Amino acid sequence: MSAEEPRIGTGRRRLLRGAVAGTLGAAGLAAASGCPAHAAERDAPVQDDARELSVAVLLYDGFTALDAVGPYEMLCRVPGVRVTMVARQAGPVRTDTGELTLVAERAMSDVTRADVLLVPGGGNRGTVAMMEDADAHRWIRRIHRRSTWTTSVCTGSLILGSAGLLRGLPATTYWASRPYLKEVGAVYTPGRFVETGKIITAAGVSAGIDMGLHLASRLSGEKVAMAMQLAVEYDPDPPYDTGSPEKADAETEALALKLLEDSAR
Amino acid sequence: MSAEEPRIGTGRRRLLRGAVAGTLGAAGLAAASGCPAHAAERDAPVQDDARELSVAVLLYDGFTALDAVGPYEMLCRVPGVRVTMVARQAGPVRTDTGELTLVAERAMSDVTRADVLLVPGGGNRGTVAMMEDADAHRWIRRIHRRSTWTTSVCTGSLILGSAGLLRGLPATTYWASRPYLKEVGAVYTPGRFVETGKIITAAGVSAGIDMGLHLASRLSGEKVAMAMQLAVEYDPDPPYDTGSPEKADAETEALALKLLEDSAR
Repeated sequence: MSAEEPRIGTGRRRLLRGAVAGTLGAAGLAAASGCPAHAAERDAPVQDDARELSVAVLLYDGFTALDAVGPYEMLCRVPGVRVTMVARQAGPVRTDTGELTLVAERAMSDVTRADVLLVPGGGNRGTVAMMEDADAHRWIRRIHRRSTWTTSVCTGSLILGSAGLLRGLPATTYWASRPYLKEVGAVYTPGRFVETGKIITAAGVSAGIDMGLHLASRLSGEKVAMAMQLAVEYDPDPPYDTGSPEKADAETEALALKLLEDSAR
Repeated sequence: MSAEEPRIGTGRRRLLRGAVAGTLGAAGLAAASGCPAHAAERDAPVQDDARELSVAVLLYDGFTALDAVGPYEMLCRVPGVRVTMVARQAGPVRTDTGELTLVAERAMSDVTRADVLLVPGGGNRGTVAMMEDADAHRWIRRIHRRSTWTTSVCTGSLILGSAGLLRGLPATTYWASRPYLKEVGAVYTPGRFVETGKIITAAGVSAGIDMGLHLASRLSGEKVAMAMQLAVEYDPDPPYDTGSPEKADAETEALALKLLEDSAR
């Protein structure tokens, strides 16, 4: 063993399995060894395979990364679910800070149906642009017409609202944007997420994780959602108690808004 | 107002600010209006501007998206911090499910220094490949030599360990991979994250969010970290109490491992 490059036993080839072989037992390990039919389904296009539950996440210039990636991570391992990033055009899409780029796999025009639509929030510039984007609104309404669930995270609810989906309905949004819900006809309602009919709106950024697990439960049952919570080791331990404006003081709130403003691109 | 496209007042152009104008006051709003000098700094390359705190996140084929995006979202708005995604080559990098692609802005060979190094975890295939990647280990050691903080999320600690950084040190990792820490010379230590000298290792996937806020505090103080927690509305409300193997039952644990196995690409 060199000082620079420690060698490791062959057991590591199943880093995620060996630890609990005793729990799974032989039958469990056999069951866990993968299902080719399921693997084939996951390669199918979003809207062409009725056996698959399709989740379309709408990316746009200036979206907030965690708004999209939080729910993606909670849903992408749910059996039969395929999450697809969709944008005006397929290809790279920049986040609100300009420091991170995600790739949209499909263009809006190529996606005509999804079981779940998720619209993430974004910075001021990105959100406002989407609130004014009639093409995006038409696409959102088209997908919503046949969706099982239509959902948003953070200021994504202002985009759903601008598309005409929230009129007279209870909804939530990013804490600093709550007053704007009424301008899109929605009724601000407190909650980590708010479910009304088939629409679920989540509060800001990290609330998409909680909503994502709720959606996992709706799509595949509580046992799967409980397992997904363990799969992402979601046993949160926030260092402070400042995660909502009801808990944070005025100085923290002012500084949070300044950090958002200064980081916007 | 058409039935399809509700119009909204001009106030929405400051969706994130108007809500708390009373809190900020006139002086606060002036302070929040942005700093051109700071904006210029953020455009500088990672390693060329000593005034900037650079965070390099190492992406690789098969990494887990939330491991990278959780800490990114907690750090990207910290004053003076610039987060850069780095990979073997600049360009698209696939996650462990194959359903999401992030873009690495820089190649490892172009990044010779970073104040903070963050190595996310990945699925079995991606993690094992990185545990065997001597080039990546050399780069990790090079960055670590001059870093202020060297950090990992999930099985990223097995990669740090394979690079020789954890010998005899306390560390944590993904719950199902804990036994493998000793194979890279580390001593498994319980905790949402474990700090030892300048190395911080976080537990699985979502633990990177908690570690990210801790890092924000280390880099810029508690007031900024508290504000960042509010900025991402991190007031978690998990639907179940199954986020760690100590809390979940054996059936949930077996199902979590099966979901991970079946979704691996």
